[in-house]
Amino acid sequence: MKVRGKHYRSLWADEPRGIVHIIDQTRLPYAFETATIADAEAMADAIRTMRIRGAPLIGVGAAYGIALAVSRDPSDESVSKASAMLRTTRPTAVNLAWAIGRMRERLAAVPVNERLTAAWNEAKKIADEDVALNEAIGRHGLALLEREHAARKRPINILTHCNAGWIATVDWGTVTAPIFMAHDAGIPVHVWVDETRPRNQGLLTAWELTGHGVPHTLVTDNAGGHLMQRGMVDLVLVGADRVTRRGDVCNKIGTYLKAAAARANDIPFYACVPTPTIDWSIENALEEIPIEERSPDEVRVVRGIDADGHISQVRIAPAMENVANPAFDVTPASFVTGIITEKGVVRASEKELLGFWPRHKESKAYLT
Amino acid sequence: MKVRGKHYRSLWADEPRGIVHIIDQTRLPYAFETATIADAEAMADAIRTMRIRGAPLIGVGAAYGIALAVSRDPSDESVSKASAMLRTTRPTAVNLAWAIGRMRERLAAVPVNERLTAAWNEAKKIADEDVALNEAIGRHGLALLEREHAARKRPINILTHCNAGWIATVDWGTVTAPIFMAHDAGIPVHVWVDETRPRNQGLLTAWELTGHGVPHTLVTDNAGGHLMQRGMVDLVLVGADRVTRRGDVCNKIGTYLKAAAARANDIPFYACVPTPTIDWSIENALEEIPIEERSPDEVRVVRGIDADGHISQVRIAPAMENVANPAFDVTPASFVTGIITEKGVVRASEKELLGFWPRHKESKAYLT
Repeated sequence: MKVRGKHYRSLWADEPRGIVHIIDQTRLPYAFETATIADAEAMADAIRTMRIRGAPLIGVGAAYGIALAVSRDPSDESVSKASAMLRTTRPTAVNLAWAIGRMRERLAAVPVNERLTAAWNEAKKIADEDVALNEAIGRHGLALLEREHAARKRPINILTHCNAGWIATVDWGTVTAPIFMAHDAGIPVHVWVDETRPRNQGLLTAWELTGHGVPHTLVTDNAGGHLMQRGMVDLVLVGADRVTRRGDVCNKIGTYLKAAAARANDIPFYACVPTPTIDWSIENALEEIPIEERSPDEVRVVRGIDADGHISQVRIAPAMENVANPAFDVTPASFVTGIITEKGVVRASEKELLGFWPRHKESKAYLT
Repeated sequence: MKVRGKHYRSLWADEPRGIVHIIDQTRLPYAFETATIADAEAMADAIRTMRIRGAPLIGVGAAYGIALAVSRDPSDESVSKASAMLRTTRPTAVNLAWAIGRMRERLAAVPVNERLTAAWNEAKKIADEDVALNEAIGRHGLALLEREHAARKRPINILTHCNAGWIATVDWGTVTAPIFMAHDAGIPVHVWVDETRPRNQGLLTAWELTGHGVPHTLVTDNAGGHLMQRGMVDLVLVGADRVTRRGDVCNKIGTYLKAAAARANDIPFYACVPTPTIDWSIENALEEIPIEERSPDEVRVVRGIDADGHISQVRIAPAMENVANPAFDVTPASFVTGIITEKGVVRASEKELLGFWPRHKESKAYLT
């Protein structure tokens, strides 16, 4: 999407120079800065520190991480080592394991002296596919928003949590694609943006919506239930870090609270999900998906702009204060109205999901 | 309760000097500072700016505000003017109107030359009664926690939202009274403390629990549903700003999300409520209780301690960012397991409430 009139992807490769460019998301929305990633270690670090984030994007980042490792050393050992390092950067999103698995499968099939080209090509393919997946999700979501608008004949109020925007993917965004397309098609939409503590990724969503001119309102994570109660939310759209074969949706902490309130108020709750986010190997989401526990300082310390306009931070809780910081939660399939995928809108059940992806009647995590 | 070994109430009068002392809650938990309130205007300002806050405490503050007005001028006109000014400081908590109504009724019954003594006495009576109400709530809540502990034979995990602690009342706190008493009685309790954006009153709760040595963990407002899903919450205890005759609980924004998740997980949800918080005149909470919309800058700007140890703030969202900041929401009676009052634990229904307070079969808002 465009930043100050110029089109960007959230990550792009300079293959001749053997480097990858990223938008440093830890600086957003306060500063728009790009950074250069020159090796697999730096890519792992960028994922771990959330300079790049979002389930689809970290999958693509990991794929390029493998390509960077192959640039240095195309041996099996090098690929294995880079894979292991990249895979452990973040535990919850399945896209990481999916992309690494796909890269390894591709590289295993070619001789060592052809791996350099194969690795960069495959990573680029994964990146381009991500853009296409998001566009397709956008078209299916657009049809849904068109129907909502036709039925209500007034602006459609969407609530979203965290950032499943274009910078969480390579382009478009899983949740923002339908919203951008609806806005462009002249369907009036308004988005309630949860700030999404502790890291406030809602500010990234607000920044993206501002960039595209979409009307929106920032709210605290506490406000959504109140808005739903008052008829001010027509539907909830969220992304996902991992969806199980049964349709349980693992997403940013707090998603489940919105899903429970949406259910209590008969408000449709949709997850926007490309195939690589579905983990066909998982049956019991609560037991089998590892929930990342991040640093307590993400809660204790808040970042923003100080009086002098510099990026700065304040401590809201003392270092001695005991803090828990689980980063994701699970919304059970029973609370999910539908999953908006690149293939269409699917009901959140194993039967329906397997109807769209019949090859997964036997599980294999990284195949589409 | 004690602060650094010394016993404090959150508000106390120096009647001979005609002033009232408060703990400045906008400085907590970063600095413990008291301030002096010398007239009704200053009291109104302290309530409006949340230097004193919490439904019970602002009721007591308003009562002393009337006494301060009477000290200057005991006429009917003066009392009316002060009442109107104090009543409009915050719209949602009913304790304000209740306390003002009670002061006016008392003052109307005495000649102008006796009003000075009557006003200070009545305000003191309201403050002392608040302490007694909280103590009684504590005893009933303690019995409930004792039963939970006897049944589970392990530490009891309580989740609370916002601050219904001793500084939200004159002493003890509606939610903290049972917790302090249980802790003192040797019942192992652990409290999950929601930070409670945007004003982070959870930090006040954490400060109070630390002061009393009660084990607790600070979490974002997003985490509660996840904790409930995983069996890590045994019960939810919250305060209230207004409870209707039907048992709907109006409390800090976000309470409703926790109630919906508690219901989805069969976790008991209790509101700790003294009689003055019950508004017998309200039948339909969603339609009749005014929900305060506070400044968008409460969301855009976060306060804490900077690198130099000074109270400071950072801006997380630009001034141009559209923000909504509703301060309260309504949890319907159907989501409330029980209301812990000074008279005992009542089910959240009109029939049960009127069984405990039969005189309110005909409504009159400020009578107990």
